[in-house]
Amino acid sequence: MAIEASNKEAGGGRIRLGMVGGGQGAFIGAIHRMAARLDDQYELVAGALSSSVEKAKASAADLGLPADRSYGSFEEMAKAEAARPDGIEAVSIVTPNHMHAPAAKAFLEAGIHVICDKPITTTVKEAEELAALVKKSGKLFVLTHNYTGYPMIRQAREMVANGDLGEIRVVQAEYPQDWLTEPAERLGSKQAEWRTDPKRSGAGGAIGDIGTHAYNLAAFVTGLKSEQVLAQLTSFVEGRPLDDDVQILLRYHGGARGMLWASQVAVGNENGLKLRVYGTKGGLEWTQADPNYLWFTPFGKPKQLFTRAGSGAGPAATRVTRIPSGHPEGYLEGFATIYAEAARAIRAAREGNKPDADVIYPTVDDGIDGMKFIEASVASSKAGNVWTKIG
Amino acid sequence: MAIEASNKEAGGGRIRLGMVGGGQGAFIGAIHRMAARLDDQYELVAGALSSSVEKAKASAADLGLPADRSYGSFEEMAKAEAARPDGIEAVSIVTPNHMHAPAAKAFLEAGIHVICDKPITTTVKEAEELAALVKKSGKLFVLTHNYTGYPMIRQAREMVANGDLGEIRVVQAEYPQDWLTEPAERLGSKQAEWRTDPKRSGAGGAIGDIGTHAYNLAAFVTGLKSEQVLAQLTSFVEGRPLDDDVQILLRYHGGARGMLWASQVAVGNENGLKLRVYGTKGGLEWTQADPNYLWFTPFGKPKQLFTRAGSGAGPAATRVTRIPSGHPEGYLEGFATIYAEAARAIRAAREGNKPDADVIYPTVDDGIDGMKFIEASVASSKAGNVWTKIG
Amino acid sequence: MAIEASNKEAGGGRIRLGMVGGGQGAFIGAIHRMAARLDDQYELVAGALSSSVEKAKASAADLGLPADRSYGSFEEMAKAEAARPDGIEAVSIVTPNHMHAPAAKAFLEAGIHVICDKPITTTVKEAEELAALVKKSGKLFVLTHNYTGYPMIRQAREMVANGDLGEIRVVQAEYPQDWLTEPAERLGSKQAEWRTDPKRSGAGGAIGDIGTHAYNLAAFVTGLKSEQVLAQLTSFVEGRPLDDDVQILLRYHGGARGMLWASQVAVGNENGLKLRVYGTKGGLEWTQADPNYLWFTPFGKPKQLFTRAGSGAGPAATRVTRIPSGHPEGYLEGFATIYAEAARAIRAAREGNKPDADVIYPTVDDGIDGMKFIEASVASSKAGNVWTKIG
Amino acid sequence: MAIEASNKEAGGGRIRLGMVGGGQGAFIGAIHRMAARLDDQYELVAGALSSSVEKAKASAADLGLPADRSYGSFEEMAKAEAARPDGIEAVSIVTPNHMHAPAAKAFLEAGIHVICDKPITTTVKEAEELAALVKKSGKLFVLTHNYTGYPMIRQAREMVANGDLGEIRVVQAEYPQDWLTEPAERLGSKQAEWRTDPKRSGAGGAIGDIGTHAYNLAAFVTGLKSEQVLAQLTSFVEGRPLDDDVQILLRYHGGARGMLWASQVAVGNENGLKLRVYGTKGGLEWTQADPNYLWFTPFGKPKQLFTRAGSGAGPAATRVTRIPSGHPEGYLEGFATIYAEAARAIRAAREGNKPDADVIYPTVDDGIDGMKFIEASVASSKAGNVWTKIG
Repeated sequence: MAIEASNKEAGGGRIRLGMVGGGQGAFIGAIHRMAARLDDQYELVAGALSSSVEKAKASAADLGLPADRSYGSFEEMAKAEAARPDGIEAVSIVTPNHMHAPAAKAFLEAGIHVICDKPITTTVKEAEELAALVKKSGKLFVLTHNYTGYPMIRQAREMVANGDLGEIRVVQAEYPQDWLTEPAERLGSKQAEWRTDPKRSGAGGAIGDIGTHAYNLAAFVTGLKSEQVLAQLTSFVEGRPLDDDVQILLRYHGGARGMLWASQVAVGNENGLKLRVYGTKGGLEWTQADPNYLWFTPFGKPKQLFTRAGSGAGPAATRVTRIPSGHPEGYLEGFATIYAEAARAIRAAREGNKPDADVIYPTVDDGIDGMKFIEASVASSKAGNVWTKIG
Repeated sequence: MAIEASNKEAGGGRIRLGMVGGGQGAFIGAIHRMAARLDDQYELVAGALSSSVEKAKASAADLGLPADRSYGSFEEMAKAEAARPDGIEAVSIVTPNHMHAPAAKAFLEAGIHVICDKPITTTVKEAEELAALVKKSGKLFVLTHNYTGYPMIRQAREMVANGDLGEIRVVQAEYPQDWLTEPAERLGSKQAEWRTDPKRSGAGGAIGDIGTHAYNLAAFVTGLKSEQVLAQLTSFVEGRPLDDDVQILLRYHGGARGMLWASQVAVGNENGLKLRVYGTKGGLEWTQADPNYLWFTPFGKPKQLFTRAGSGAGPAATRVTRIPSGHPEGYLEGFATIYAEAARAIRAAREGNKPDADVIYPTVDDGIDGMKFIEASVASSKAGNVWTKIG
Repeated sequence: MAIEASNKEAGGGRIRLGMVGGGQGAFIGAIHRMAARLDDQYELVAGALSSSVEKAKASAADLGLPADRSYGSFEEMAKAEAARPDGIEAVSIVTPNHMHAPAAKAFLEAGIHVICDKPITTTVKEAEELAALVKKSGKLFVLTHNYTGYPMIRQAREMVANGDLGEIRVVQAEYPQDWLTEPAERLGSKQAEWRTDPKRSGAGGAIGDIGTHAYNLAAFVTGLKSEQVLAQLTSFVEGRPLDDDVQILLRYHGGARGMLWASQVAVGNENGLKLRVYGTKGGLEWTQADPNYLWFTPFGKPKQLFTRAGSGAGPAATRVTRIPSGHPEGYLEGFATIYAEAARAIRAAREGNKPDADVIYPTVDDGIDGMKFIEASVASSKAGNVWTKIG
Repeated sequence: MAIEASNKEAGGGRIRLGMVGGGQGAFIGAIHRMAARLDDQYELVAGALSSSVEKAKASAADLGLPADRSYGSFEEMAKAEAARPDGIEAVSIVTPNHMHAPAAKAFLEAGIHVICDKPITTTVKEAEELAALVKKSGKLFVLTHNYTGYPMIRQAREMVANGDLGEIRVVQAEYPQDWLTEPAERLGSKQAEWRTDPKRSGAGGAIGDIGTHAYNLAAFVTGLKSEQVLAQLTSFVEGRPLDDDVQILLRYHGGARGMLWASQVAVGNENGLKLRVYGTKGGLEWTQADPNYLWFTPFGKPKQLFTRAGSGAGPAATRVTRIPSGHPEGYLEGFATIYAEAARAIRAAREGNKPDADVIYPTVDDGIDGMKFIEASVASSKAGNVWTKIG
């Protein structure tokens, strides 16, 4: 099987990339770096890897960054890199949530493309300001809702768009985990500390960390816009200031109805992201634990198992697949596809062009939509679980 | 493996059983008869099998009932059988919902035990009147919430009761089907006709037909009482007077929170009843499509697969299992267990005793609770999806 | 869903049935009785339930048999029942293997139909003598290779016969268990005792107990005749005189090649019977743990999930299904189908007719074929694992 | 979760890597490059990417290799790179099988470490000569039996070594595919052409391409040495000179018995590599389609699901895992682990040291063992499926 264009190795023209956050002990930074490397589209050449100067330096050394391109702050980095003839073309922002907006602002203003982890910011207002800046800057903003990079999610989206499901009626999304079943934030987990801290995470706990992923995935696949949310956010672990369980009803434009459950206290679930979509003509089911498969049932016919790079896979899935069917691709490959799509867009931008029509990645608008979802959900929950307009 | 006491074949002392409904072309009547036969506890000797006299007669002949014990109405049957020295000791009521209450009333008043399909009635009021009559009559009333007969559901209930899950936090129940995706009631399906007809089904469609099963199962396993419901009932198929999709939030006594989804338009689902329960110490998952398995995860330990009659199965499950592990039992066996449990209670009643403590079957109180759930859900939905007290 | 003809309840004309073996503490006798009861085709009226007179009597009382029809030996029973005007029409033989042939002989000679557990005898010679007697007697002989009663196995057979798989190339059958991992026969298991005892089981251990099931199932589905076997039989547990693990290569008429594995020491397997068949045009996969499903892949197309009573199920499966799709049927229902098929044949015989063409059950010829398979396998293994003609 | 040492990003000290084969249109070369890149341990700086000079040049340009380090032949490349101060330290050989030995020889003689695809050569003799050369050269030889890089395979190996399974009795390995069901080699598939051509593949078809993987995996996990093989190799597709289906019995040192099935004509299977191992105390099951899971059953206890980076995973698995549990790793990650292990060994060699004790990769000895397995299997099959000594 030939390697598809979007994943083509870059050869001599790698994109010069910087990183903010992702120093020693961080989790998501290493993921971004592996994703960036996989298709050979990027070269990491600069970083402000930690808010601790010591750790930033040590982390840069670990990664082999030149000492003079390891910066003590993102402000400094944005300025210095913008001034270099060989300065970075794009930056990956992988800090806790509250730093996303200020860092993105600094790089956009310096004329550097931004690839940013989600949720985009900690408030809708911040997200909208950022969107305005993106527009003004003419630079790219890529939000790493990485699950949209899975080939079978692309397949699902294509099938819905092709009308294979008919008119959508019911959307069931869930994302159960169990890692916060106990008060891990008081038991030494750095990840748990910031993810349960409103100052660093924003107003949402589980809803921001994983609920937005499920929400975004449902929107990505169905193409439907959510109009209203009715949410019940719960903190089951005593003393935890943010929600660790989220039970939600959704109303979509056009009449489809959704349920969304996200939990960090559902014992026995690791990262159980699952999406089911039902329409007048057919139904789809996908689960992240087995991402290479997509179940499709045309009404009245046997259920069919579509496989990545196998029978049933259409152009949208094939375009972003790297290896033959039956050899599983996983989380990193899906994540890498976001980076590969971003690379196509950045290369087009180099020439002053828009990316090709088939390039797909989550944008600042998806980020705003996610923040509106979080805010509306928090508001709905506080108001006693009443329908609340999104946005 | 020895056969357990609750399923012991009856020998010479079979219980004399009658049936109301279940004539030619009916579905659930045949299920009840197979369930009654499996453990050899009952002998079907009388029936009012159809509201059509012709069909009642023909159906009785098919089943080999004596001609003089095939009745034209349940009123006639109750009276005549009560007068016979060899009259029926119990009756199975397997009509559409709206006939449950009048038929049950007739037999209870005639001093005959009642085994009744669910939902118990079409209103809470009717159910409460029936409960009063049950109490007054001193007769048994067994409601065939058959899923409570599955061995691994008994196992789950026992584990929750034993504290293996700790304090329950989250309950996820669902029951998706797809058989009403199209307007089957206008395409010649007799089942679809009465199940979408408020006159025969009551105020609930999917919620009464399958939502109550999911609700009852969650209550059975967790032992938790639901206090409030927030429901969104939808009729996706144009012109259908009853709901075909149900999205519900539940609040349980003690703080647990539940979601419940039941649908008759979820393409690709046959009878996807599934229950997941999460507590402070562990989580359980069970699905009707593979009923011989129960997943249990103690927090921080590997997920374990408990199997019917296999490792991990405790006394509550073993008591109601018939065949060795690895040889699947199914829907009929679970249904038969309700009949076997009823038989133990009826035998005890013959002697003027209460049934042994380990005999478990759904009662008229479960029936009332189910009706309250339906009524509260319908009310919540009509009021714009607001929290509504159950009962 | 209407109940199909083959499973129709019998009404007044139940077949009078006797049983040999199956007394207290036995496993398979109770299974046969439940299977016979499920579709209401039989009435158990006589028995020689144990070789111990005491136990026979007590067992008969348990089952409510009239005292005068509980016999001390099968010889006595055959004679007495044949002499009664209301004597049994058929007998179920559920003893250890070595008693099958003498008991069957007694009843056939008394003019009584025989339903017999497998393997049919302990030697080919015995089986052939029995076949001759069956022919001479004009009576029916039904061998309970119960897995052939599963609806999706009927479906698989029909699909192969219809050519949906093209020409068969590869057959993979397996039946792993783990209950004899330790020397259970010396730890008090009655089942283990006789099943590992050559005097009662014959020359084969695992191969006779479960290997024949897998072998028969492959033949039933593919319609192919095995010509040669190359077998390696192993006794892993020290001191066990019969094999507890069986590894086999098979050559089928026409060029297909098979592998068959049966084991009683494969830890983690309960009754893992599984069949996979691959042809030039398609492939099929079925496993007993989930018997309501059949995977079918047409070459180059997505895998499809056919479900019992659901989409994809053809007439052969539908004919023997009792309940709607999504409500699982299990082991007992498949077993009951063998009894239901036998009932149709016995009813036809009452009128002097052959059974209808769609009635399918394993016969004495399947029994001979199974014994030839066992003997050839034992011989192949003893000769150092060389190709050995079957029969 | 911190990234483990073996996968640590290399920073400034990347290993200079060359590649032989893997030009435009090839499949496995791109896989090797992604695997080499993932953990940032290597930098690809030279290549002889195709036997066609044109294609070699174009492929090198695609990959951004300097023009002067794109060579027309591996001989030239070995010589030139050995002469450069910044010459490659290691080479990846990803050609069709018949070129492995000559290319490896050239680089070893030039003092360059070799990473080579499997099977190692086309004959045992060649493999043994290569082994002698490896020894003489003092250079590393890493064979990419990539499945040994899956974390849960490492887990399985560790558990067997720890005695969790007791003494191994039965090993079941299989690797079904279906891509050669039809004569793809005559329908334009380049992959099919060389893989069914004895001149380029050697004496084995399916047995060399996938059978060796299954064989190697079983040996890797169990630590058992195979002593004898009894093989039946079949070419089901007319005119195909090499086997496309392989049915094998194995005898292991110590008395364990194995079955191995590999097929390229099993319709519905993509890359169904599966391994099951049963011992006196427990059983293990793993399948490549869901590589993040490992089933473990201690005898008499419930089956447990061990997950990559989750509960149950021990040090051997954790050491080679990159991302948290529940986020699936796949084929490329396992492949990358082979490269990461090789990198540790190469770095140690730079210092004149042996690699740390926990570094694990398949060596030239595994290659010889694989070739002996192929040759013995071909011989056994030709001799009429008789036991044949391996080696």
